[in-house]
Amino acid sequence: MTTTDLSLPPALTQVSVHDAFWSPRLDANRAHTLPALYGKLVEVGALDSYDLPEYAKQGVTIPKHNGVTPQMWWDSDVAKWIEAASASLVTHPDAALDAQIDDAIARMAGAQQPDGYLNTYFTAIEPDKKLTNERDWHELYNAGHLIEAAVTHYQATGKTSLLDIVERYARFLSGVYGTGKGQRPGYPGHEEIELALLRLYHATGRREHLDFARYFLDQRGTLPNYFETEALARGDDPKDFWAGTHEYMQAHQPVREQSQVVGHAVRAMYLYAAMADLAAADGDAALRSACERLWDDLTRNSLYLTGGLGPSASNEGMTQPYDLPNDTAYAETCAAVGLAFWARRMAALTGEAKYADVMERALYNNVLSGVSLSGDRFLYENPLESDGTHRRWAWHSCPCCPPNLARILASLGEYVYAVSAHEVTVNLYAGSTLRINLGADVGGQKLTLTQESAYPWRGDVHLSVELNAPATVTVRLRIPAWASGATVTVNGEAQPATPVQGYAVITREWRSGDRIDLTLPMQPRRTYAHPAVRQDAGLVALEYGPLVYCVEGVDQDADLHALSLPRDAALSARFDPELLGGVSVIEGDAVADQVGSDDLYSESPPATRAARLTAIPYAVWDNREPTPMRVWLRESVR
Amino acid sequence: MTTTDLSLPPALTQVSVHDAFWSPRLDANRAHTLPALYGKLVEVGALDSYDLPEYAKQGVTIPKHNGVTPQMWWDSDVAKWIEAASASLVTHPDAALDAQIDDAIARMAGAQQPDGYLNTYFTAIEPDKKLTNERDWHELYNAGHLIEAAVTHYQATGKTSLLDIVERYARFLSGVYGTGKGQRPGYPGHEEIELALLRLYHATGRREHLDFARYFLDQRGTLPNYFETEALARGDDPKDFWAGTHEYMQAHQPVREQSQVVGHAVRAMYLYAAMADLAAADGDAALRSACERLWDDLTRNSLYLTGGLGPSASNEGMTQPYDLPNDTAYAETCAAVGLAFWARRMAALTGEAKYADVMERALYNNVLSGVSLSGDRFLYENPLESDGTHRRWAWHSCPCCPPNLARILASLGEYVYAVSAHEVTVNLYAGSTLRINLGADVGGQKLTLTQESAYPWRGDVHLSVELNAPATVTVRLRIPAWASGATVTVNGEAQPATPVQGYAVITREWRSGDRIDLTLPMQPRRTYAHPAVRQDAGLVALEYGPLVYCVEGVDQDADLHALSLPRDAALSARFDPELLGGVSVIEGDAVADQVGSDDLYSESPPATRAARLTAIPYAVWDNREPTPMRVWLRESVR
Repeated sequence: MTTTDLSLPPALTQVSVHDAFWSPRLDANRAHTLPALYGKLVEVGALDSYDLPEYAKQGVTIPKHNGVTPQMWWDSDVAKWIEAASASLVTHPDAALDAQIDDAIARMAGAQQPDGYLNTYFTAIEPDKKLTNERDWHELYNAGHLIEAAVTHYQATGKTSLLDIVERYARFLSGVYGTGKGQRPGYPGHEEIELALLRLYHATGRREHLDFARYFLDQRGTLPNYFETEALARGDDPKDFWAGTHEYMQAHQPVREQSQVVGHAVRAMYLYAAMADLAAADGDAALRSACERLWDDLTRNSLYLTGGLGPSASNEGMTQPYDLPNDTAYAETCAAVGLAFWARRMAALTGEAKYADVMERALYNNVLSGVSLSGDRFLYENPLESDGTHRRWAWHSCPCCPPNLARILASLGEYVYAVSAHEVTVNLYAGSTLRINLGADVGGQKLTLTQESAYPWRGDVHLSVELNAPATVTVRLRIPAWASGATVTVNGEAQPATPVQGYAVITREWRSGDRIDLTLPMQPRRTYAHPAVRQDAGLVALEYGPLVYCVEGVDQDADLHALSLPRDAALSARFDPELLGGVSVIEGDAVADQVGSDDLYSESPPATRAARLTAIPYAVWDNREPTPMRVWLRESVR
Repeated sequence: MTTTDLSLPPALTQVSVHDAFWSPRLDANRAHTLPALYGKLVEVGALDSYDLPEYAKQGVTIPKHNGVTPQMWWDSDVAKWIEAASASLVTHPDAALDAQIDDAIARMAGAQQPDGYLNTYFTAIEPDKKLTNERDWHELYNAGHLIEAAVTHYQATGKTSLLDIVERYARFLSGVYGTGKGQRPGYPGHEEIELALLRLYHATGRREHLDFARYFLDQRGTLPNYFETEALARGDDPKDFWAGTHEYMQAHQPVREQSQVVGHAVRAMYLYAAMADLAAADGDAALRSACERLWDDLTRNSLYLTGGLGPSASNEGMTQPYDLPNDTAYAETCAAVGLAFWARRMAALTGEAKYADVMERALYNNVLSGVSLSGDRFLYENPLESDGTHRRWAWHSCPCCPPNLARILASLGEYVYAVSAHEVTVNLYAGSTLRINLGADVGGQKLTLTQESAYPWRGDVHLSVELNAPATVTVRLRIPAWASGATVTVNGEAQPATPVQGYAVITREWRSGDRIDLTLPMQPRRTYAHPAVRQDAGLVALEYGPLVYCVEGVDQDADLHALSLPRDAALSARFDPELLGGVSVIEGDAVADQVGSDDLYSESPPATRAARLTAIPYAVWDNREPTPMRVWLRESVR
């Protein structure tokens, strides 16, 4: 594999992460999350569902497996597990895991229909309803995840067993869906296949997949709305759509005309990720412009500080600008994963660091909070305040988040670097090694870039260069927006201080042994929300580097709501190797309201006393006993 | 009617209210609420339901009337309308209304079964299910409201038409329910009949009604739990109780053992009102002690500042101590009405003013907020914060609150005064006239007490005495807990300053022309919640006299959440005759967060600017265009 003109993530085989912060999480992901997922897929019958006969044709009741009826999104869960497990094999070869994957793929091959169709739920349970309700029934969504799994499996193992299956399936689908004669002008109710087809294009170079992705994006939201056409064809009244609006799946207007992030948050993120990828591949200015508008809308109006989005449980998604409730925040883990997908592609599309800033925010906060340090307990919703009753669980009736977490963590290297024929971009600071072949026009040299740092606890990052021959390429180092006073040296020599598009850009002839030192000044900082956010009025949050902090009741000597942090109180960070696997806490002198009497109401304000406030990274909340938590703290002004 | 040794409310015929604050509300109640209620009862078919044949026996589908199926609580709604309308006749004779009442009563007489049973729902719709599910089906609740209506109708009109019906019904029920042979040891799932039977006892003097009330209270919460026995008798599994716990209806333990206000708030209030009344009538120390424990629990842990209670919609009731959410507060209007019932009886039972303080709080705030100034729009839930979408409505599928409001407003005089053979207690300050015959032991004189005041806008109250002969009685004037520095003079002569049990107590020989002047110093005051109330941490509320204030968006030049009130800002009250029918507003200099940039998050706290804060009484919120509202305001400390 070599680099191209497009800025793309490195192949998984080109990068490895070995980092004090990330490695324990990746180890837990491999050692605990992956087996837990596989165990659950076996337990509920998701894997066995590939072997199911057509129950509907036999006229028998839909079977239950350990009490669970087959679910129409199971294929996606199996696919995400394959994707995560395959990625894991790159750095940690594991014959048993490899065999589990091969077994699952063999079952998939057996379940694939002669025409290429592959969906266990519809094949086994409701074969007469195949391809009749893309609005609700997740067939193209499942297909997308199969395709993503196939791409990763192929890139990780070199095997084409799953790739062959999904390319057959994709060709079947591109026969069904399109604007040609006899085709249905449809597209998915839950976006996913668009970004998957673009990954398939990047992996195979076959333009048919790019074209099919473009078709889905071009068709979306056009009139007459396909979901209404499809409902009429089923004999349903289109008005009986339970979600009430096509904004729910971003099908209310053509994608190039969209300006506001609406509806189901995960769907929106997957759609926009595909739009950004296609905009880059096609050089499509209108699509890029839509992406930029949507990005501005999200980040100016509706993004939680933690990189979460979608405040509402009722639509698993968006509500009004500046509506960011903390205790009832839905902020689904998958939505933050999807935001990282989109942000990475926006950074590649535009070259601007602000996108990678948000990618980092999502990864270090709302994504990581989705899984316990132990790797086997998960959060679906990621509120910014809890009374102690919001806990992680081992599984979920709609188990989308755990395997989504598993696959993004297993492919973390794709987020650390981006590469093109003549440029290496460093988007995340994490101990890692990148090995690529430079483009032929540069000279085709073998470049190894090794990164060392104690990020996010410390802001000094060191990169060393190995080359089999000198090469003139550009290295871009992201300067996070919060890192004022960042400095860069090459071999000890100071580099120009002003970032370009948010990156320190160094173009020179590099030689083996060259060393880059980046210093990002890091200290606890206070963050305030826009005054239009009613839920954060009068409150302050604490951040440190890329991490958002929270207070947990177990660390304080006062009720969380009784604590307030004086605006001028000094804050300090202290690394505690014993706490939560080793984290830096933020400490400061606070005040706490004191109970004066039993009276429920009083004409006297509560007296206050001195208190000590200890904050931990939001990423590791709820890893101890049940205890209240909050990100936004009362601020007092003396 | 003459006075007794018990402290009881005056009969409706003994008191009239003519007050600048209350009369417009009472006029709206009579002129708009009562006709609106009657119109709705006709429209939905509640009145016609008395004429329904037994559909179930005919084997036909339950009929709908204007699209509405008969509801099992309709009898209570008709009864509450009769009660309110009857009370209205005392001060405002109205032949047409009198005829409407007579017509309804005649229908009831026609619907009463030969054995005395009277329930339109079960007679017409499910005759086979009569008296089989007191846990859920509201039969005794409906009976209680019929009894209350009969008592008021009798007291107001002297007619016994409804009284005869309910006494027959009560005797039928006391045959069914009891601990004797062949009786069922049951009691209501929704309390109400207990307090109604006690009213029937007070009105008729017949001890059988007192005894039946006592039976219900004694039996409640004993083991085996009757609702489980009853479920088994129906063939149901007692574990399938949808509410999950007998705390829901305060049947989890015998009433004399109860210490914590639990479950459905309205049910709790109705129960405790009956307990207090029986404790007084029986001199039952254990019952009184339970009432006092429950009162302390409510007022120390769970009472909204507005006199509302029951924060949770899911059980229409109680949750945990100090859980007082503002925006999601259920705080049902009926619960505050029920609190006024209970508080009035506690004040009578104990002689302590603190109970009447809470009665006043409920009446002037959460009760009054339940109805629009126009008298025809209602709140079921009374939150202390709204984004502008919580509005009054004209009717409700469970329309308990509007007629409950109507009856308590129509009988307001019962809350202003309490009388016994030798004592007059003034619990509320409102322009009014009380005419009673003193007890025979005092001399049987005719006493007329006339009260004049501009309360709650001003704290000076004037009472004048008329007597056909001098009489030595005690007059007790409540000194509200907030009124420090209150003074009382009789004929200009200062009276002892220290209240007894919260009352200024004046025992003397009174003569016609005697004049009492009470001065309650009144100024805007700040109120703070106990530090354990997380929802009010850092917030302050404003009160003035008995009124809790709120800010509505329409009166401010800043978003409500962006406003904060400096702790030392001067506050002033100003009467505005043009605003909301004439109210005093509280005004003060506040500060407002300013928007500095489009950034959703910033390292800089919002700059502030001077702003003017204008607060209105909570009782009159949502009487203009939709606008946000909040009671608890951010406080800043300079």
